[in-house]
Order: sequence, then structure tokens, then C-alpha cells
Amino acid sequence: MARVTIKDVAKKANVSTATVSRVLNNVGFVSEEIKKRVFDAVDQLNYQPNAVARSLKQDKTNTIGVVIPDISNPYFMTISKGIEDTIQELGYQLIFCSSDENPEKESGFLRLLYGNRVEAIVLATSGKNEELIDDIHRAGIPIILMDRRIEQPDLKLNLVEEDNLQAAYDITKSLIEQGHTNIGVVNGPDHVSTAKDRYLGYKKAIDAYGIAEDPNLTFNGAFSQEGGRQAVEHFLNLKKKPTAILALNNAMAFGVLLELFKRGYRVPEDMTVASYGEIEAAELLQNLCITSIKQYPYEMGKKIGNLILNCLLKKDVPPSHEVIQSTLVLPNKNQKNE
Amino acid sequence: MARVTIKDVAKKANVSTATVSRVLNNVGFVSEEIKKRVFDAVDQLNYQPNAVARSLKQDKTNTIGVVIPDISNPYFMTISKGIEDTIQELGYQLIFCSSDENPEKESGFLRLLYGNRVEAIVLATSGKNEELIDDIHRAGIPIILMDRRIEQPDLKLNLVEEDNLQAAYDITKSLIEQGHTNIGVVNGPDHVSTAKDRYLGYKKAIDAYGIAEDPNLTFNGAFSQEGGRQAVEHFLNLKKKPTAILALNNAMAFGVLLELFKRGYRVPEDMTVASYGEIEAAELLQNLCITSIKQYPYEMGKKIGNLILNCLLKKDVPPSHEVIQSTLVLPNKNQKNE
Repeated sequence: MARVTIKDVAKKANVSTATVSRVLNNVGFVSEEIKKRVFDAVDQLNYQPNAVARSLKQDKTNTIGVVIPDISNPYFMTISKGIEDTIQELGYQLIFCSSDENPEKESGFLRLLYGNRVEAIVLATSGKNEELIDDIHRAGIPIILMDRRIEQPDLKLNLVEEDNLQAAYDITKSLIEQGHTNIGVVNGPDHVSTAKDRYLGYKKAIDAYGIAEDPNLTFNGAFSQEGGRQAVEHFLNLKKKPTAILALNNAMAFGVLLELFKRGYRVPEDMTVASYGEIEAAELLQNLCITSIKQYPYEMGKKIGNLILNCLLKKDVPPSHEVIQSTLVLPNKNQKNE
Repeated sequence: MARVTIKDVAKKANVSTATVSRVLNNVGFVSEEIKKRVFDAVDQLNYQPNAVARSLKQDKTNTIGVVIPDISNPYFMTISKGIEDTIQELGYQLIFCSSDENPEKESGFLRLLYGNRVEAIVLATSGKNEELIDDIHRAGIPIILMDRRIEQPDLKLNLVEEDNLQAAYDITKSLIEQGHTNIGVVNGPDHVSTAKDRYLGYKKAIDAYGIAEDPNLTFNGAFSQEGGRQAVEHFLNLKKKPTAILALNNAMAFGVLLELFKRGYRVPEDMTVASYGEIEAAELLQNLCITSIKQYPYEMGKKIGNLILNCLLKKDVPPSHEVIQSTLVLPNKNQKNE
């Protein structure tokens, strides 16, 4: 069946297309009787106004695009829930794109969202798209950076991030104070700000305690569960195995645990594990002793939601840079706030 | 900065807008020298062709919309991975919308995707949108139903689902054969086909063994983790508590486990638990004895991806209805295939 057009509706209702448009967009005066005729025709023909054509005129799509590196990571989905709870009352909808930590895929999605004229873009970047981000920003689409900075100091965008360096310093310091000097670190991709900052935090802590950096003890786990598994394999093949493994995000930490358990290692008896971020599954393991950084993704989402509303509803609000302090949770302390 | 238009590019390159269009769309003859002038102007002005305007002409967005009830459920995300791996080589991209099991929200997303002229829509429906789905289908946008049927027998759409009734029958029968006659069932919303079929499978099994249906032993957990927690509270407040709890999806099963553990119940010593679907976290708990249904979401995604390609690349392929058989996994059998 060919798509029903506004002309078909006008013909059926025996009015002009301008009248149909006035009724559907609720502008100008139209008598109740004619309104009824138009709505009846719309119903009978199953007319769906083409939202793209309409949005080209109205300059409004009410859609916010969210580009994240890993749509299956509960951390990003909890942030998104916070955003959604903040913006949905005003009629905005979120659509999601998952870049899989792949800058090229991210670039495709940014172009797609820009081309589809979303009202704003929330981006947790996988890196390397500074120029394109700058272009979209210049074109007047608000971009809010979520969790991750971009390497373009001249470009001032809204940004909500954690104090990654401090938190990574805290958790490393805690491991050292628990007696570990041989710590295996599972890091993320080094072109991502969170990975970079967390590694710097770790480095700062070992420096402070006079522990030498050992390249064998750093493994790039690509922020993925699979990367965490591979890191365990790497560390356990070393001549001098680490006594603790610090995973610098939740997905890698989960992979580390899965691989250690698979190999029959007990935690912490055979290996100490520390996780930057909470592992949802760990709630099931009441006797699991790991040190972790508690993040506040829902709160981050609320802040981002408010920044989106600032951008869309107010004029001339300068870009804001908000930093969330995460907290260290020691094993067996029952510090759970949730 | 105002958005750069094709006119600005034409002016800068000192050619007509038609020439710019020919160069950018790579049609017709244009000399190398003029091509270079156009591309230089595009670069200098940071010109981004408006993809909506362009797609209105080209009738092509290369985007597939995916509407799912719970974007944080690994089951749906694994299906999506299967879809993506099948279609991305042909240049299609997925965008995701999460309806939160809310038919009204789903309707908004369907209209949004339709309006933005996605090439196809993959839908795991939260129910009640049969008419709108029919309209979109009639408008020529392929809709592929994922995991869930719609209640409109006249409307023939592509569909990939599990044999939910059979699998629910199998898992209930297994509980009965383990000696349970008092089974608490945590069900999903009854306007969703998977919830309905799974409940029918459970009913068929208790009927076969002459066990009476007890309304107190059925709890609508809305397919959510929180629903699973609430179900435990409900069941434990009954005078005659069940000896087993059967959760009819993975999220509710995870909620059941979390709540039982919180209350100090051991599984299976104090309560038997069965889950329709695998709980990712359960991999951490090697001594967790639960009966479960193993699903094959990645395979479902591959099948859906192929149906999308059929719809987009071939003409006149009749709609296909594919059913995946899930398998029963008994505790301690080490039947893991992954």
C-alpha cells in the first residue's frame, strides 16, 4: 500500500491540505465540525504524518541521542536511567547507539544522529573523534560529554565525570596498605580519559610508596569482560605472579573473577581482587571479599539530564564541568548504601 | 554558528549547487579539478550534508530501529549482538529504544522510528500496539517481531520466538519430579506472549500431574528484578509457603535469588529455585543449584538479522515464523555449552 499523504486526508475530509495541517498542528482557528471531519479522515486512512518532513518544518524532533561504548554495561545503563527520569517529563525520548569502544563506529553514529537532527547528543566517547564532535557542536547541536573527556582543551563542552584519578589512587593505596607490592593492573584503552586517569591514579599511589612500575604487571583489557579473563591468563603465566589484581572497570573485574573461579582460585585466599566499579553479580556472593570503588551512575545521569534541559530550554548558559567523587568500599565493611 | 548549507559550498567552490550535489553523491560527470574544488570547500566549511534531507531524496537511512522492553537485560542485548553481527557488513546500523514494558512508551518509539524512516524495525513488543504495528507494516516498513508475538492473527509478520510453552512445561515437570507440589510462580505481564505461553506451559504440567492451580502461588513480577524480589516477599508471607519458586524470566530469577539471600535463605537447602533463562551472575556461584532453561539469544539474533536482510535485499519473500527450542539444564549436571 502506498503511504497515505496529507493530500489523501484533505480529499477525504473535503478540505484543503492547509486546513488539515492547521488541525493536526493545532494552530489557527478551525471549527469543531471541520476538526471532526479531518480526524475522522485521519482515522479512516490510518494517516501518519511523516515525522521527518514535519520535523524539518518544526525544527524539533524531541529526541536525544545517547552514544555509549558498551550498551550491555549496567554502569552506562544506570546513567541513562538517570537521564531519562530527568528529561522524560518534558517529552524528550532517548535513543541509544553502542559503539563497542570503536572510534570509527562512534563516528558513524554521531553522523547518523546529527543527520537525523536529534536535539542533543550525550556521548561517552571511545576517542579519536574530536574534530567531528567540534563540527557538530559548531553546527548548534548541544553535546554533553558523559563520563569521559575529549582531548581538545579548546573545545568547551558540558561534561560530567568522576574524579577517576583520585578514586584509582585510593583503591591502589588501599591494596598497598593491605600489604601488596606486586599488583597486576587491568587497564582500559589508553585513548579514553577514564582509562588514562585511572592509570595515573594507580601510578601516583605506587610512586608514593616507592614501588617500581613493571610493564608485565599492566594489561590492556579493553574495558571488556573478555579482557578481564585474558588479563588473568597473562598474570598467571608470569614468573612472578601478582598477589592482587586491580581491574579498572566493572566489566573487566567481572571477567577477572570468572576466570579466577574457573581456574579454581579462591578470592581473597589465593588472589586479592579489587574493582573500580561495582559488580552487580557480587551481591549474590555474600562472602566475596573484594575492595571496590562505588560509583554513582544514577546521580551522574540526573546531572546530565539537567544539563540537557539547560541547553534546550535556556539560552546562553556557559558549559559546565561537574565532577563526582566516588567512594572506596573495603571488604566486609557493609558500607552498602543501596 | 549557522549550519553550513550546500549553497555556501557552491559559492565557495564557485560552482552550482547541482554540481556540488553531483560530486557529493558521485553521480554524473564532473572534472577532477572541479571535484577537488568542491571537496576543498566542503573541508574548509566543515559542511555536513543534512542526512535527513538527503535521505528524503535517496529513500535510504541504513538504520534499523530496535525496540526492546528492557535494554539492561542481557538476553535482549545478546540477541542484538547477533543481529548486529549479521547486518553490519552490509552497512546497516542499529539504534535502540527501551520501552520499559510500557506499551505507551513503545508506541511513541514506533512513531519516532517510523517518522525517521528507519529501513526496518525489530520489535519485542510490550503489547497493545497491534494497530500501530499494522499501520507501519502497511506503510511498507518491514517489522520483524523478536521473541514476542502480537495478538493479531491476520497480520503476518516475520517472527522469531522460542517454544516458550514447551520449555516452561519442561522446567515445571522437572520441579514436580524433584518432589515439589507447592510451586510459587513468578510470571510476567499477561499481555505479553512469552508470559502467557510460559504460564500455559506451567499450567499444562501441573494439570498433567493433577496439582490444583492456586492463585496465591502466582505473582506478576513484571519481568523485572524488582518484581522477583517482591514475589519472594509475597510467597514468604503465605501461610503455606511454596517449597520451590519458578521465575519465568532471568531478571525476575535474579531478583528472587537476591531477596532470598538477603533474608538468609540458602538455595536449594531452604528453597528450591528454577529460572526460565540463564542468570549471568550465577556463573560466579559454582555451588548454586538451580534448575534453568538455557536460551539461545545469539542464535535468535542471527536469525533475525537474516530476516532483515531478506526483507531489505530480496523482493516478495513471504513472512517467516521461526521457533527456537530452548533446553532444560538440571543443577550439577555441568551441561554448560558455552
